Amino acid sequence: MAVNYDIPGELHLTELRAARERVAAYVVETPSIPWHSGKLLSMLPAGTEVWTKLELFQQAGTFKPRGAMNVMLHLDEAARARGVTAVSAGNHAIAVAYCASRLGIDAQVFMPKTASPYRIAKAEKLGAKVVLCDTQTEMFERAEALQREQGRTFIHPFEGPRTLQGSAGVGLEIAAQMPDLDAMIIPIGGGGLAGGVAAALRQLRPGTAIYGVEPEGANTMTMSIAQGGTVQREQVSSIADSLCPPRTEPFSFSVCNALLDDIVLVDDAALRRAMAMLLSDLHLVVEPAAAATLAALCGPLRDRLAGQRVGTLCCGTNIAFDDYMTLMADELNSSL
Amino acid sequence: MAVNYDIPGELHLTELRAARERVAAYVVETPSIPWHSGKLLSMLPAGTEVWTKLELFQQAGTFKPRGAMNVMLHLDEAARARGVTAVSAGNHAIAVAYCASRLGIDAQVFMPKTASPYRIAKAEKLGAKVVLCDTQTEMFERAEALQREQGRTFIHPFEGPRTLQGSAGVGLEIAAQMPDLDAMIIPIGGGGLAGGVAAALRQLRPGTAIYGVEPEGANTMTMSIAQGGTVQREQVSSIADSLCPPRTEPFSFSVCNALLDDIVLVDDAALRRAMAMLLSDLHLVVEPAAAATLAALCGPLRDRLAGQRVGTLCCGTNIAFDDYMTLMADELNSSL
Repeated sequence: MAVNYDIPGELHLTELRAARERVAAYVVETPSIPWHSGKLLSMLPAGTEVWTKLELFQQAGTFKPRGAMNVMLHLDEAARARGVTAVSAGNHAIAVAYCASRLGIDAQVFMPKTASPYRIAKAEKLGAKVVLCDTQTEMFERAEALQREQGRTFIHPFEGPRTLQGSAGVGLEIAAQMPDLDAMIIPIGGGGLAGGVAAALRQLRPGTAIYGVEPEGANTMTMSIAQGGTVQREQVSSIADSLCPPRTEPFSFSVCNALLDDIVLVDDAALRRAMAMLLSDLHLVVEPAAAATLAALCGPLRDRLAGQRVGTLCCGTNIAFDDYMTLMADELNSSL
Repeated sequence: MAVNYDIPGELHLTELRAARERVAAYVVETPSIPWHSGKLLSMLPAGTEVWTKLELFQQAGTFKPRGAMNVMLHLDEAARARGVTAVSAGNHAIAVAYCASRLGIDAQVFMPKTASPYRIAKAEKLGAKVVLCDTQTEMFERAEALQREQGRTFIHPFEGPRTLQGSAGVGLEIAAQMPDLDAMIIPIGGGGLAGGVAAALRQLRPGTAIYGVEPEGANTMTMSIAQGGTVQREQVSSIADSLCPPRTEPFSFSVCNALLDDIVLVDDAALRRAMAMLLSDLHLVVEPAAAATLAALCGPLRDRLAGQRVGTLCCGTNIAFDDYMTLMADELNSSL
């Protein structure tokens, strides 16, 4: 490829590798597997080869400790003693709880009272103090108050060089575990994962095309790129709630804007079909966000990636089995 | 360890490595992962460290192509042209169908008419001709007739040096993937997997204790070892139907007899609890046999392996989701 990408200094390979070393004792190297049979391959054009990274086997059940831990490890002793805070509907709250508990840091996280009881319980079990709030606004205001009054550090769910350095570990592992890919598909929530993985792959695998995928009802990064800057949404909606932050932020936006070849959209029906495929082919029960890259491969990217070697990513899962069954009832009746 | 094990020449390390090379193009290297959180660790004594090899991601959804492929690759052109036959209630039929189709060999397999429609369909989809039989006796008689009349080769589900050479690949990978183990637990059906894995680990990891696990209602290897020779049972019964062959055979018996430190038993309730744990902690929907090593770790081996580093094995899964839900209905209502 003749294109030169503009990669910020904080995301140069030496920085990414240093971050991975830093967090190595607290996160696991998750495996990647080839998809050798089943429903997926039967519905893709002949010759398409698919790999999947099973990041759902990560600590806390999500890729998020990779970034959050890299942030927390940079806090000095005084900051650690003052504690951390965060705002999240689930996976990030659980990840912050996990990282804080490993480092002996006090964590207080604000979650919407509509968050799944499963996720609330998991964050609490990992030692975080969870405060349930009525609105997004309330969550952010209370987290800001805590920073002001107690000097706590706010751990952002996806923004900032340190967060992306951490999530780039997923990309370093992909480059080491999968053979040379023609294309890699990465899910986009706020872009912290997509930006980090893209930064790693652009440097290690310049021949790999990189696609992002967003839920149709939460196409916030797509809008941001179209408008040339961050946006704040009134409303976002998808069953892939982990991919539904209501806004983009400058750093992760600029990295995604510079490094992704394209972003495609998937709707809830496509997410459900992809979840059913993960169940039938890999025997995995996953939340919708973990099926997004597969939904993209089966839908908008199907013909574009025909006959290519494609990487996908199960980015994590924290969903109660009952909720899974409710969400998938119709899909499972018709497809299995 | 001062003990010297009697390892047959066919299972010396060079033979095992050669077999693995031989089948490398047809089977995948399945990953191993550390079990870092969840229900399992909370119920084991403090300090117990658990690894799991996810062999359910193998071709055909089971470890069985490793052995069957090693056998088929030794057939000369004339034998390949005459075809193969097999007798199986499921995983072996599917594995034989897979291997035969990869090598362009005609496969005719005899399955009980009580076999799960899911497994029958999977074997057929992979290209085998499936003949459903009323009794075990009928299956074996018809397979023998086919050998006599058509010169087909009988692919045994677990017996013989070539089968064990192939399944030993699981052991080679465990030694490469997991850190030094204090103990490894292996499921026993006919002993083809247990014998192969034990042969690999005894040579590569002499410090690792090796335990087998059988279903309580199908403790055929345990009986054979107690009696000092192979046995044939009238009746065996367990929800782990993949671990229920009605007899032992000389080679796999002698290897298991020589190389295993002990065999423990688990009942159906323990298997169900272990299946629920694989669902809650690893998000995996597996058939009972794949949960057997975990059931052993949580039950009869719990205290003996307290504080040790233990390897477990999800040996494969071919179960319809509906059947899983039926089997697990009570367990999931009470545990999730």
